[in-house]
Amino acid sequence: MAIALGVMGCGLIGGSLAKALRHAQVVNRVVGFDTRSSALQEALALGVIDQTADTAQALASGVDVLVLAVPVAATAPCLAQVAHALPPQTLVMDVGSTKVQVMADAQRALGTRVAQFVPAHPIAGKELSGVAHAQADLFSGRRVVLTPAPGQDPQWVQRASALWQATGAQVSTLSAHEHDEAMAAVSHLPHLLAFAYMRALTAQDPNAPPLALAGSGFRDFTRIAAADAHVWRDILMSNRHALLQ
Amino acid sequence: MAIALGVMGCGLIGGSLAKALRHAQVVNRVVGFDTRSSALQEALALGVIDQTADTAQALASGVDVLVLAVPVAATAPCLAQVAHALPPQTLVMDVGSTKVQVMADAQRALGTRVAQFVPAHPIAGKELSGVAHAQADLFSGRRVVLTPAPGQDPQWVQRASALWQATGAQVSTLSAHEHDEAMAAVSHLPHLLAFAYMRALTAQDPNAPPLALAGSGFRDFTRIAAADAHVWRDILMSNRHALLQ
Repeated sequence: MAIALGVMGCGLIGGSLAKALRHAQVVNRVVGFDTRSSALQEALALGVIDQTADTAQALASGVDVLVLAVPVAATAPCLAQVAHALPPQTLVMDVGSTKVQVMADAQRALGTRVAQFVPAHPIAGKELSGVAHAQADLFSGRRVVLTPAPGQDPQWVQRASALWQATGAQVSTLSAHEHDEAMAAVSHLPHLLAFAYMRALTAQDPNAPPLALAGSGFRDFTRIAAADAHVWRDILMSNRHALLQ
Repeated sequence: MAIALGVMGCGLIGGSLAKALRHAQVVNRVVGFDTRSSALQEALALGVIDQTADTAQALASGVDVLVLAVPVAATAPCLAQVAHALPPQTLVMDVGSTKVQVMADAQRALGTRVAQFVPAHPIAGKELSGVAHAQADLFSGRRVVLTPAPGQDPQWVQRASALWQATGAQVSTLSAHEHDEAMAAVSHLPHLLAFAYMRALTAQDPNAPPLALAGSGFRDFTRIAAADAHVWRDILMSNRHALLQ
């Protein structure tokens, strides 16, 4: 099998997917692109990718599977960049935490090529970001939700599903709306509460002794507030409607 | 050393303190009392206590150290019950999560004997309750806050401090107000948020798929919502003022 994987965004998720698919011998070549040249060079030095692409278009034009592993708000511009470079048999996926908006973005950016786009959300991660923390088993035993468009040709969904299954993930399918509502309830709202709580706490009198008295309940309750604030700002804004409900 | 410990409320905290102090050879006899006769008999059968007392008064009158390990709302009636049975050298402590209210209750119930009362809050526990889960090392390495009254004779505070240090805890002292404000910030508010969040989530459409998509962030964020609802209702009501602030 000579399958080339393109990873746009060489961070924790993109890097872990590259490692997982290579480990599963599902891909034999990984090409990376990242607007942060330091991340790109680090991915190359770590052997997570085999080669770098100079542009998003160059990346897209030479791979069989293209994964956009960028923050939610960066997905739309990335799709626009690759739209005209995409070969007709190349599968495109994102890995974002919200799906309604990305599907609207993809429709706009890709036109008829949107048929090749299968929105994916691996429910996995950790507080540490960056390709240096990428691990081949990050998705093992975790859930991955695909949200294909109504009426999308099942061959694309099957290809996407097979790839994620090869990482050890449990793959399921939901509508984008179902996905976003469920994630608002079990993930986005807890993150919003934890972020808001920590902000209120740290804004209090710095001479007050509270943190010294914090126990294990505090530690667990606030763990998610250590997640990347910019990534989560994008997610919360992108899923604003379901979150407010 | 022939020191008798009286434990009023044979649950997780009372049982763990009895085991810890016996293990540290600080007490050589433990007498228990509990309005729930099943808990009392279980504590006896497990060897956590050596004997049972028939009444709260009988318990108080025969021990050197009396610990009220009961829910916050039960502390005031328990203090009233033991007030007139208390020998003049018996140290009394509670283990409650709020301190302003319990000190006002103690003043009312104990009168001049309030000098013997050292409010204590071991910041330790687990989701499991009951004497069967008591463990001698529950307080090891954990914080215990004492909130003595302004001007209280230091000999009582020193006795209390020495006992908790024998369990392996780190003992510190705060005013009751400082304690309650700090705990509202780092413990009570997170519990309130977690309880309210879980209630909102479970009140939603039971056919919605959200819980299946919950990840490790959800698990940690909601762990404290598994705590005993009655215990926490009492704590939140008792510390209402600081919590609202």
